[in-house]
This record gives sequence, C-alpha cells and structure tokens, in this order.
Amino acid sequence: MLVTGAGGFIGRWTLQPLLARGFEVHAVARALPADAAAGVTWHAADLLDPSQRATLVSAVGASHLLHLAWYAEPGAFWAARENAAWVAATVGLVDEFATAGGERAVLAGTCAEYDWTADGVLGEDSPIAPATFYGVCKDATRRVVEGLAARAGVSVAWGRIFFLYGPNEDARRLVAGVANALVVGERAATSTGAQRRDFLHVDDVGAAFVALLDSEVRGAVNIASGEPVTVRSIVERLASAAGRRDLLDVGALAPRPDDPAELVADVTRLRHDVGFVPAIDLQAGLDATVAWWRGHLRSDR
Amino acid sequence: MLVTGAGGFIGRWTLQPLLARGFEVHAVARALPADAAAGVTWHAADLLDPSQRATLVSAVGASHLLHLAWYAEPGAFWAARENAAWVAATVGLVDEFATAGGERAVLAGTCAEYDWTADGVLGEDSPIAPATFYGVCKDATRRVVEGLAARAGVSVAWGRIFFLYGPNEDARRLVAGVANALVVGERAATSTGAQRRDFLHVDDVGAAFVALLDSEVRGAVNIASGEPVTVRSIVERLASAAGRRDLLDVGALAPRPDDPAELVADVTRLRHDVGFVPAIDLQAGLDATVAWWRGHLRSDR
Repeated sequence: MLVTGAGGFIGRWTLQPLLARGFEVHAVARALPADAAAGVTWHAADLLDPSQRATLVSAVGASHLLHLAWYAEPGAFWAARENAAWVAATVGLVDEFATAGGERAVLAGTCAEYDWTADGVLGEDSPIAPATFYGVCKDATRRVVEGLAARAGVSVAWGRIFFLYGPNEDARRLVAGVANALVVGERAATSTGAQRRDFLHVDDVGAAFVALLDSEVRGAVNIASGEPVTVRSIVERLASAAGRRDLLDVGALAPRPDDPAELVADVTRLRHDVGFVPAIDLQAGLDATVAWWRGHLRSDR
Repeated sequence: MLVTGAGGFIGRWTLQPLLARGFEVHAVARALPADAAAGVTWHAADLLDPSQRATLVSAVGASHLLHLAWYAEPGAFWAARENAAWVAATVGLVDEFATAGGERAVLAGTCAEYDWTADGVLGEDSPIAPATFYGVCKDATRRVVEGLAARAGVSVAWGRIFFLYGPNEDARRLVAGVANALVVGERAATSTGAQRRDFLHVDDVGAAFVALLDSEVRGAVNIASGEPVTVRSIVERLASAAGRRDLLDVGALAPRPDDPAELVADVTRLRHDVGFVPAIDLQAGLDATVAWWRGHLRSDR
C-alpha cells in the first residue's frame, strides 16, 4: 500500500496501524523524516510534480492508497491558492493509481465541506456548502474522484476530518499553541471558547483512517469522536494538566464572527460500518499532549 | 492570447473573431489542422501531458486564455473517465497561465451543470445539480478555477454552452446525423422530438466566447439563443431544406426516459452584460448546415 503525507501530523500515526494489519507500507513524503519508522519503505517525492508522482505510483504498484497529503500551512490553508494545485494532484494521483492496478483508496476530506450555518450534528448526508476555498477544493476533489473511481473499478472512501490534537502538532494551532505556552510559562489568551467542537486525538485519527482503508465501506465517513466539547473546556483541561491555570486568559481574544456555535459529527458510519472505536479518552489525551510539550520545550528556552 | 481546442467544432469558429478584435492568436490543438487559418500561430501539444502544457503556456506568455479543449467523444463524453483528467489539466492550465502573467481567462462550461429536473428557463443562478459525470467535472472545475483565479489576480468568466449545430459537426450528433442522412438519401429516425431545446449556430457560439473574452464580465454566462425550439421542429426544417421529408421518421425512436421537457437559457447576461447578439437565424443556419453536408458527402458514396 502507498500512504501520502506520511511524515505529516496524521500520516505518522497511520504507519504502525498499517503494519499491524499486515500491509506492506510504502510511505511518501517530500523529505524523508529523521525518525523514519522501521518496517516502512520510504520514498521522497513531490506529489505536485506530475512526473515524480507518476513515476512513484507506477513503481510502487500498490493495491491500496491512503492519500493524506495536502497543503496544510496553519491559518493560511483555508484560503490559499495552493489548494487548487492539490485538486489537480489528487485527481491525477487517483487516475494513475487506478491505471497501475489500484483497488482501494481512502482520501482525506474535511468537515469544512459541510454547510456550517446549519444547526446540529453533521452526518455524512448533511448539506454540503463549503465556506472556504479549502472546503471548496476538498468537496470538488471528492466529487471528481468518486466518479473517476467508479469508472476505473477502484473502491473509494473519503474520511471527513473534524478537529484533532496531539503530539507534534504545529504550535500555531489551538491545542498545541496553548499547551506549548503553558509549559514554557507564557500567558495563553483565548476567546471565551463557548463553541462546541468534535475533537479526536491524532493517534485515533490515524488509526481510524487505517480501519477505513482496511474495510469495504465506500463514500464519505466522518472521522471524529461524536462527542461535543467546548473549546473552553479543552483549554481549561490543558491548564490543569500543566498546573498553570494562572496563565490562562479565557475571553481575552474576540470571537471570530463566523465561527459556528457547534461542529459535531454523527459517527454512526465510523462506529458501526467501519467498526472503529477511539482508544484515547479526551482527558488522557490532553494530559499526554501537555506531557509531550514538556518533553519538547522550545530550544530557545 | 492562447486558445485551446482550436481545431475543434467550436474552436475553429473563434479564430476569425479573435483576429478581427486584434488579438495575436496562438492556437493549440493535439494535431495541427490541415486547413490552418492564416494569421494564427499554431502549436501542436497534448494538454493532458503536464510538461507539454507547462512548456506551451510559459512559451506563449499570453495575457488572455480561451480554454475550449475537453474530452468530447460524442455519446461517450457524458460518462467517460477522461473527464477527470480534464479537470486536472484545466486547473493546472489556469494555474500555469496565472503564474506566466495571464490576466483574463474564459473557459467552456455546460448547461449540464444545472439541475435539469427543475422547470423553466435556466439562468446563471439556477440550482446546480449535474446528473452526469461530464457535468460534475465541469462544475467542480468551475468552483476550483474561480477560487484559484481570484487568488492569482486573473479575471475569469465561464461560458455555459447549451445546444449547438453547424458545419463540421460530428455526424454521431443529432443535427449533423440527421442532415447527413437526409442528403445521402438515408432514412432519419428520431424520437417524437417534443423536447424544447436552446440551439445556437456554432459560428455564433464561437463569436460569443470571443465577445465574452474581450469583455470584463466575470462568472458564469449562458452561451445560447434564449429561444426554445422543439427537436421535432429542428429535424423537420432540416428535412425541408434537404427536400426529403419522406426520409424523416419522427417517433421511430423511443424517447430517453430522463430527457427533460425543456432546456432553455436565460441569455440576459450574454445580451446585456456582454453585448452579444447572434448573427445567424435558426432557419438560415439549418439551411446552411444542410448545404454544407451536401458539399461534404461521405466519401464512400
């Protein structure tokens, strides 16, 4: 099997579950990671370069594809022009995978495909109306890839990622930013945090993608916990784990005007059709995240 | 300026209007046409080959792009896998055009982006719900290209083509097939032809795309006549023009079950915003089409 974005935040958590299920794992990343997992065959390639991509896909000849790579610069990815290039690269990748004899592909989608102005819990059949260019590009990719795969005899599923956290997260993102600030003794300013979100530990996100790949489930599947939690509760738990509630400044930042009150997944398909149950409880996961940041203090301190 | 699909059914009708408006015309086709128009610089390239495409776009360095190329095999194009490759190629083309300093692009869309189960006249804001893979891929391309262009500083319009006819049409398509059969003395079997469609002569379709390119209008614009005509009326006019009403067998074919009763464009944007008025009246256009087929009898007869 071939996994893209294998050195990324989610990708690195798919390698052990893939090996544990008996896959022969070919991992691709733009640059090979320093801590490359044993038992995995690594390939350095830029998937945005059509010739590098085609050469890799043809050489590996994988039966299974787990495509996690995409432009992911924190903050910038929502509106970046680079999303368009990833549409073309992803459609090309699936086309080449099918031509090389591929049978089963799972791709990373996003909860940003859904209409966020609708109330309540988001099921896979909830209205689609992406408000961001990232969401537009993921949604367009899914529509094209599903039709392409049906014509090319490839079974495809599309994992819609909600919110996630865990070790190695970019410190410009919420949980990592707060956890890092707290362990280095800096003030952590947040909004009031009243918005309810669906958070899943990145280890479980990776394992859920692998479970989906190893199933026969087709179409969109939410990759989430199904359990709403306020952002305030998340940051307060981080502060407690760090023993630094004094550094937490909840309400110091203005809420974003378009921020929906609730984004929570219906996880019936993931639980019942795929049979995946998360292993990491939120409290334990946040405690472990704070511990990880303690062990990875910024080198300038 | 660069025009793709320049040797195709529509593309060849854009060359004289482009030259007449003072554009320096670079035309690309997979193979150079035998009857290459004077005053046009031709390039042979396969736009599905990323390196050929990138080399061409960079070499030409056009300020304007008219992208008409797509997979168009009659009948097959509605469902063909090849549509996906054209999504990737089109997104890549616009990305490369923008990077090379491009300013204005017009791309070919389709009335098949609209929800055909809705009644009445189709305006550019009518609901989008493509029922075919061709429509899905055109719609997805538009969404991605519009976002990409906005970020890259390129002005983009999207011409939604309805029904068209005229010289050089593939004889597997309706008007050409009936006209050709009639002039060679073969029976022409059709459905009852009660469905109302919006037909525009291909010369006007080409000229409308050029007018749109040479305007500042952005977004989707229907490329159509705005005048509903039954398919029965079309084939009867062809039979009259050919003097062979005896060969016409209306009602011999079963209607297609999903065929909508009416597909007609609201052409307010094309008429008022772009300022384009068709030059060819339907009767004159159909007469000329029959005359063209008389002059191009199949070589095996």
